[in-house]
Amino acid sequence: MKTRILTILKETDGFVSGQELCDALHVSRTAVWKVMRQLEEEGYVIEAVRNKGYRLLEAADVMTEAELGSRMKTRWLGRNLVYFPETDSTNIQARRLAAEGCPEGTLVVADRQNAGKGRRGRSWASPSGTSIYMSFVLKPDIPPYCASMVTLAAGMAVVKAVEEETGLETGIKWPNDAVAGGKKICGILTEMSAELETIHYIVTGIGINVNQKEFPEEIRESATSIGLELGREVNRSALIAKTMEWFEVYYDKFLKTKDLSLLKEEYESMLANLNRQVRVLDPAGAYEGICRGIDREGRLLVELPGGEVKAVMSGEVSVRGIYGYV
Amino acid sequence: MKTRILTILKETDGFVSGQELCDALHVSRTAVWKVMRQLEEEGYVIEAVRNKGYRLLEAADVMTEAELGSRMKTRWLGRNLVYFPETDSTNIQARRLAAEGCPEGTLVVADRQNAGKGRRGRSWASPSGTSIYMSFVLKPDIPPYCASMVTLAAGMAVVKAVEEETGLETGIKWPNDAVAGGKKICGILTEMSAELETIHYIVTGIGINVNQKEFPEEIRESATSIGLELGREVNRSALIAKTMEWFEVYYDKFLKTKDLSLLKEEYESMLANLNRQVRVLDPAGAYEGICRGIDREGRLLVELPGGEVKAVMSGEVSVRGIYGYV
Repeated sequence: MKTRILTILKETDGFVSGQELCDALHVSRTAVWKVMRQLEEEGYVIEAVRNKGYRLLEAADVMTEAELGSRMKTRWLGRNLVYFPETDSTNIQARRLAAEGCPEGTLVVADRQNAGKGRRGRSWASPSGTSIYMSFVLKPDIPPYCASMVTLAAGMAVVKAVEEETGLETGIKWPNDAVAGGKKICGILTEMSAELETIHYIVTGIGINVNQKEFPEEIRESATSIGLELGREVNRSALIAKTMEWFEVYYDKFLKTKDLSLLKEEYESMLANLNRQVRVLDPAGAYEGICRGIDREGRLLVELPGGEVKAVMSGEVSVRGIYGYV
Repeated sequence: MKTRILTILKETDGFVSGQELCDALHVSRTAVWKVMRQLEEEGYVIEAVRNKGYRLLEAADVMTEAELGSRMKTRWLGRNLVYFPETDSTNIQARRLAAEGCPEGTLVVADRQNAGKGRRGRSWASPSGTSIYMSFVLKPDIPPYCASMVTLAAGMAVVKAVEEETGLETGIKWPNDAVAGGKKICGILTEMSAELETIHYIVTGIGINVNQKEFPEEIRESATSIGLELGREVNRSALIAKTMEWFEVYYDKFLKTKDLSLLKEEYESMLANLNRQVRVLDPAGAYEGICRGIDREGRLLVELPGGEVKAVMSGEVSVRGIYGYV
């Protein structure tokens, strides 16, 4: 009910009368009044005027199940929403739900993680009130080696959503980090449970630095937040909902061909290092070349000094711009 | 203690005195006597002669934790052994243990499965007393796309163990079914939990038809058991231990190069269809060709009528001999 009242308040320009809300939701005036009190406690500023009704004055960076639900405009992604004020890690929770058979598109969001992690078991700093920690469950009928393409689509969704929702222009550091001003604002951790031929489920975890004002010493040089880059606060719930909207679009395109044929061009337009010198940290020996985009399977195309183009697979190597992190 | 007593009984040609057993294990005569009674209840035939001691007369097809333990000659694989008279599926149990952080090499064996499954969620008939259902946990530091090579090594271990332990010659139907007389005697289901770049753990499940005398109608044409082919019963515990021994050998070789360079030749010598006509059931259109072995990554090499050799990836297609199942 809270989600519906919030949605109505947001969709109405002026006041909504208590009676209208009662009629729409088939509940009592007292019930409506109680929800208004709850919303105020969560940080919403609501004006209540006798004979006029209620009006939402200000939507702060509130992140609750109701706020998220009221913003979600997707068809299926994030429609089954599980919100935690605090949890160990949204990936762990999403994997647990997936193992229990939750529907595809189930989205887990937390305000704080006490065991957040990045790739290869690295920890991911996860304070409350400032960041997005979200993980969603996918069940595509594709073999495991195609999973990396899904994660490229997730990077695209973040870049697109950040730009549309906040105006900040970001780029992609291959394969799927979102970067701004040469620093990382988003990391993606994709995990899967699979047989050799087929995926049981994928959990894609996205961490976005939204309103952090500072970072731990060890990542200060390589990390930034959307808020720091813009000089103002950004609403996390809106950004989550927008990311889900765009992921649905990109994921649909991916599923049409089960490769990146339909996404390649747009992905390359987001690629921070396109046509620039990169350094490929191959365990067999580092080398440099010019980044020439990706192929249909998401491999990075690197043109070597001799003109030969190498297709670099995610997971085997790490790629850096020759100046700084990106 | 039971495992140690069983091991000593097996390793001794004649009688072992009760006192020797007490001394070796630091337990009382009563404790030794109790273990002998338990072993008899499990199906062992033990001769007990005053002033001489105990002697193992006959080792039937007993499958218990102690029997398995007494036969295991591996360095690390199967040393942590979990035995179930009945369970849902050994893969499910092994995945559960792996998620809880069990050591690499943990082996789960069951006498009966009530939810046994094959690839792509198909069910796997799992009656008690006649078959092997075993799953083990591996934690190799390899990217997910290399997991299929591990499963090829598992197929080799089964073929080698069956031959060494029972004398029955079997072959491999690519990628990893073991076949005898044109019918399947073994199926392997490999599952993994992974990130894009790295595997958390692999669970390799092996089902071997050992002493079944008949099969359900729907697989009678395509399945057989070792016992049916040989016309006699085979000891399951011995076969499990031998399979583990051989898998250790092959897995070591795999890890040396992280591909099948060191196994390719032996694998091909086991390949039932080598240099024979096969039909590749590609979703994009079936075609025929001659099976020419595998490459270092485990792909099947199929020579097309025009002479071109295609590398077929496991998981994308299914390959059949042009006559019958193999």
